Amino acid sequence: MRILGIDPGLRNLGWGVIEGERGRFRHVANGVIHSPAGELAPRLLYLHQQLTEVFTRFQPDTAAVEQTFVNKDAVATLKLGQARAIALLVPAQFGLEVGEYAPNKVKKTVVGVGHADKNQIQHMVKIQLPTAVLNGPDAADALAIAICHGHYFGAQQLKVRA
Amino acid sequence: MRILGIDPGLRNLGWGVIEGERGRFRHVANGVIHSPAGELAPRLLYLHQQLTEVFTRFQPDTAAVEQTFVNKDAVATLKLGQARAIALLVPAQFGLEVGEYAPNKVKKTVVGVGHADKNQIQHMVKIQLPTAVLNGPDAADALAIAICHGHYFGAQQLKVRA
Repeated sequence: MRILGIDPGLRNLGWGVIEGERGRFRHVANGVIHSPAGELAPRLLYLHQQLTEVFTRFQPDTAAVEQTFVNKDAVATLKLGQARAIALLVPAQFGLEVGEYAPNKVKKTVVGVGHADKNQIQHMVKIQLPTAVLNGPDAADALAIAICHGHYFGAQQLKVRA
Repeated sequence: MRILGIDPGLRNLGWGVIEGERGRFRHVANGVIHSPAGELAPRLLYLHQQLTEVFTRFQPDTAAVEQTFVNKDAVATLKLGQARAIALLVPAQFGLEVGEYAPNKVKKTVVGVGHADKNQIQHMVKIQLPTAVLNGPDAADALAIAICHGHYFGAQQLKVRA
């Protein structure tokens, strides 16, 4: 099973692809889409085009996106919501259901604790996917989301088969 | 010049098309796209498909979207941001620049005061576009946004030509 994880962000949208199931995964690819500064509409168009290219190239079987943490900064929340819409739209356009996981659940699954920092996530992603060359923290987060989805999505599939 | 205005919303996305320039407009069409209840990704996909169909059908020369009013309710802000991303993405996919206007500017342009209510907007839209049969307040707002864009975009165009 090929899994694509997305860490949504307007400026930096992380993505990561892994292959495997039930806790045994191998790294396929990871990267970050940087949207150009300027007007919002062309930035969203760029994210949409680049993410569509990632889906076309890697043909995942399933996808997952980190649930957005709404905070007190309304402008930041709005921006994140706009980037997140693209992260949800593209998998849907490929006919895939999109798993959504809270940041704490991703951290707990990958690192073992719900309040891990970026360094701990990169470290544990590197241990679980030793062949991966990480393209920065956003790409590492995206791989962590893919690993998390691999655990839970796999478990659901087994339940359905049983 | 054909202008398409969008009043973004996740549940109800209003749209309105007018034709004309420099304060002389005629109504072409208006409507509301209702996204089905349920998971977010299919809702965004539905909004994207339906709005793409509106653009394909009416082939506007330019488009405008209401600027989002960020409020204290972070969850509502996030939802609106997600719907707004679709409202910005679709015109960009058709190669159009997207005008953005604050709600108060739209009201001031169409009604004459910045704090007009929904009824006043519907009333003034009806006066300026007498042939329009309004499909509810969200469609009326979308026509008001199109009228506002027609005033300002037209003025900009004239400046460029002068």
